[in-house]
Amino acid sequence: MKKWETCIRRVEPYTPGEQPQGTGIIKLNTNENPYPPAPGVMSLKLNAARYRLYPDPTAGDLVRELAAYHGLSEDQVFVGVGSDDVLAMCFLTFFNSGLPICFPDITYSFYDVWAELFRIPYERKPLNDAFELKAGDYYAENGGVVFPNPNAPTGIAADMGMIRDILEHNRDVIVIIDEAYIDFGGESALPLLEEYENLIVVRTFSKSRSMAGVRIGYAMGSSTLIRALLDVKYSYNSYTMNTPSIALGVESLRDEAYFRETIEKIVTTREWVKKELSALGFTFPDSRANFIFASHPEIPASELYRAAKEKNIYVRYFDKPVIDRYLRITIGTDDEMKAFIHFLKDEITSRS
Amino acid sequence: MKKWETCIRRVEPYTPGEQPQGTGIIKLNTNENPYPPAPGVMSLKLNAARYRLYPDPTAGDLVRELAAYHGLSEDQVFVGVGSDDVLAMCFLTFFNSGLPICFPDITYSFYDVWAELFRIPYERKPLNDAFELKAGDYYAENGGVVFPNPNAPTGIAADMGMIRDILEHNRDVIVIIDEAYIDFGGESALPLLEEYENLIVVRTFSKSRSMAGVRIGYAMGSSTLIRALLDVKYSYNSYTMNTPSIALGVESLRDEAYFRETIEKIVTTREWVKKELSALGFTFPDSRANFIFASHPEIPASELYRAAKEKNIYVRYFDKPVIDRYLRITIGTDDEMKAFIHFLKDEITSRS
Repeated sequence: MKKWETCIRRVEPYTPGEQPQGTGIIKLNTNENPYPPAPGVMSLKLNAARYRLYPDPTAGDLVRELAAYHGLSEDQVFVGVGSDDVLAMCFLTFFNSGLPICFPDITYSFYDVWAELFRIPYERKPLNDAFELKAGDYYAENGGVVFPNPNAPTGIAADMGMIRDILEHNRDVIVIIDEAYIDFGGESALPLLEEYENLIVVRTFSKSRSMAGVRIGYAMGSSTLIRALLDVKYSYNSYTMNTPSIALGVESLRDEAYFRETIEKIVTTREWVKKELSALGFTFPDSRANFIFASHPEIPASELYRAAKEKNIYVRYFDKPVIDRYLRITIGTDDEMKAFIHFLKDEITSRS
Repeated sequence: MKKWETCIRRVEPYTPGEQPQGTGIIKLNTNENPYPPAPGVMSLKLNAARYRLYPDPTAGDLVRELAAYHGLSEDQVFVGVGSDDVLAMCFLTFFNSGLPICFPDITYSFYDVWAELFRIPYERKPLNDAFELKAGDYYAENGGVVFPNPNAPTGIAADMGMIRDILEHNRDVIVIIDEAYIDFGGESALPLLEEYENLIVVRTFSKSRSMAGVRIGYAMGSSTLIRALLDVKYSYNSYTMNTPSIALGVESLRDEAYFRETIEKIVTTREWVKKELSALGFTFPDSRANFIFASHPEIPASELYRAAKEKNIYVRYFDKPVIDRYLRITIGTDDEMKAFIHFLKDEITSRS
C-alpha cells in the first residue's frame, strides 16, 4: 500500500439491487412502479433554454407545489435527490448528540451505512418474531430514532398507537419516519407534525409516483428542522435538484386522479398475489407496501431467487441472517405477477 | 432552546450567488455560459418511459463517453451532481489522515465549508500580492492539497511547472486540482494522471458546456482513487445522476465543434473586455477563466455592485477582506458586455 492510500476513507461497499438491462425481463427486484408516471410527466416538454443557468437552489416551484399538496407551509418542506439524499442529510444534520441512534435490526439497509459513514453511534433494536417493531425498545435515552413505515423489507406498517408511543418517549431527540411506501397503505405520521416539532417525515417520488429515474425525495417537519436541513444542504451542495427534476416533479403532483388510480391498481394486484402465494404454501407478513416479503416452508429462498433469474424474473434476495429465508417480491403488473406465480407453480411442482 | 435542538448540527450557512428571476436582467454573477448547450442537447427527446425505473447507478453511458473523450479507461472516471457533489465526495473520501489539508486563502468558497462540515482540519495558504499561489507553501507535511486551476475568483492559472512542483512535494497525500474553468485557458493537469496516481482532476459541465441547470461534474484519476470514490458514493446514495442528466451529458460530449466554437467566442469577448476595463482604469489579474476579477482605483467595488444591480446588471461582489475591492464579472455575450461597459463608463463619468 502506498502512503497516500492511507488517507482514503474505507467504507463497506454497498451493493445496489441488480439493474439488468435488456428486454424480456420481469423486474420485481427494486420496488419500482410497473406503471408509467402521470401523462403530464410523460409528455412534458422541458425548457432546454434554462439548462445553461443554475437551477433555482431552493427548488421553489417544487417546494411550493409539495407544501400546497400536503397543506403545509413552504418552510416545512425540504427536497433532495431521492429520499436517500434526504435521509443522508437528515442523519448528518440531526444525529449529533454523541449518543447512539436507534433503528430496527431488520430495516432499510442504508441506515447503518450512513451511520458508519458519518461516524454516528447506533444500536439495532430487534423486531419480534412476527417482524414487528417493539416500541419499548425505543424508550431508553438515545441520540435519535429512525424507522420506515411501512418497514422494509417486511412491508409491515406500524399503527398510529405505536407511532405516538415512540414519539411520546422521544421528545428530546429527533425522530425520522421514512414513509417511502406509505402511499400503498399504512397510516401516515403527517398529521402529527403539528404536535411534534421534533418529527421528520420523509417521502419519495420513486415508488408511488413512478419516478425513480428522476430522483426526487422530500422531508416534512417543523420550520426549525427544515431550516437546519437547508443550512447543511447549502453548505454541501447548493444546487442538487436539476432543472428537469423540478419541472417533472411539479407535473406529477398536479395529477391526483392518475396517482390514486395507479396505487389502487398496485394494491389490488398485491392482495391478489397474497392469495396466490398463500395457496402455494408461502408465508409472509401482511404487507402494506408495493412488495411482499415471502418465505416458502420447503424451498430455500436462495434457490427460488436463482431459478427465477434463469427465467429472466428478478426478485430481491438478501443473503443475511434471518431474512435469507425470504424473497422480497415487488408488485408488478397483473401480467408480470401471473408470470411469476406461474413460475412458482412450475418450480414447486417440479420439486414435489 | 428545546432539548432536541441540541442534536442539530450547526453550520455556517452558505449564501449562494443571487439567482434573480425575471426578464431584462443581465446576469454576470454566477459564471454561467451565455450561450445555449449544444444543439443536440437542446433538441434531445428524453426517454420518459425510463423515468419509472431507477437510473443506471454507474451512469455507465456518461462514464464511457467521458472516458473515450479524455482517452482514459472507464475505471478512471467518476460522475456526480455537479462538481460540488464530486468535490464534496473527494473531501469525504480522501482527506482522512487527521493532518490539516491545504488550500489557498483566496479560492473557491466551498473548500473551508466542506472541511468544517466533515470535520477535516485545514490551513489556508496566503497567495502572494499578485494573487498567485506560492508552491513552497505546500511543501510541508499535510493531509492533502486542493486548489482550482485557474483559481477562483481571481482567474489566474498556475503553469505546469508549479503544478508539477506541488505534486512532487506531495507524493504521500492526495492532490485535487479543480479544473472548473480550464476549458477557457490554462494548462490541464490531465496528462499528469499517468505519472501521479495520487492526483485527482475535477471538471464540470456547468461552465464550458452551458449545462449548469443539469448538474454534471466529474473526477478523473487512477482506478484506485476512483474505486474509493465509488465506494463512498454507493454507501451514501447509489442513484445520484438522474436519467435526464445522463442522456443530456452524453449528447453534449458528442458535439466537439460547437463546444470549441462557444469557448472561442467567450475567450474573444473576455480579451476585448480586458482592454475596455484597462481603458477605464480597472486593474485585474490576467484571467484564463470565463470571468474577470477587477478593481477600480477610485470607486469601491461595493458601490459599483449596487449601482449595476439597480440597472438590472448582476455581478458578484464578495464582502470579505482583501477581495472586497474587486468585482467578479462573468463573461456574457458581446451585447451583454457592451451594456456593462457602457454602464461603467456612465458611472465613472458621473462621479468625476
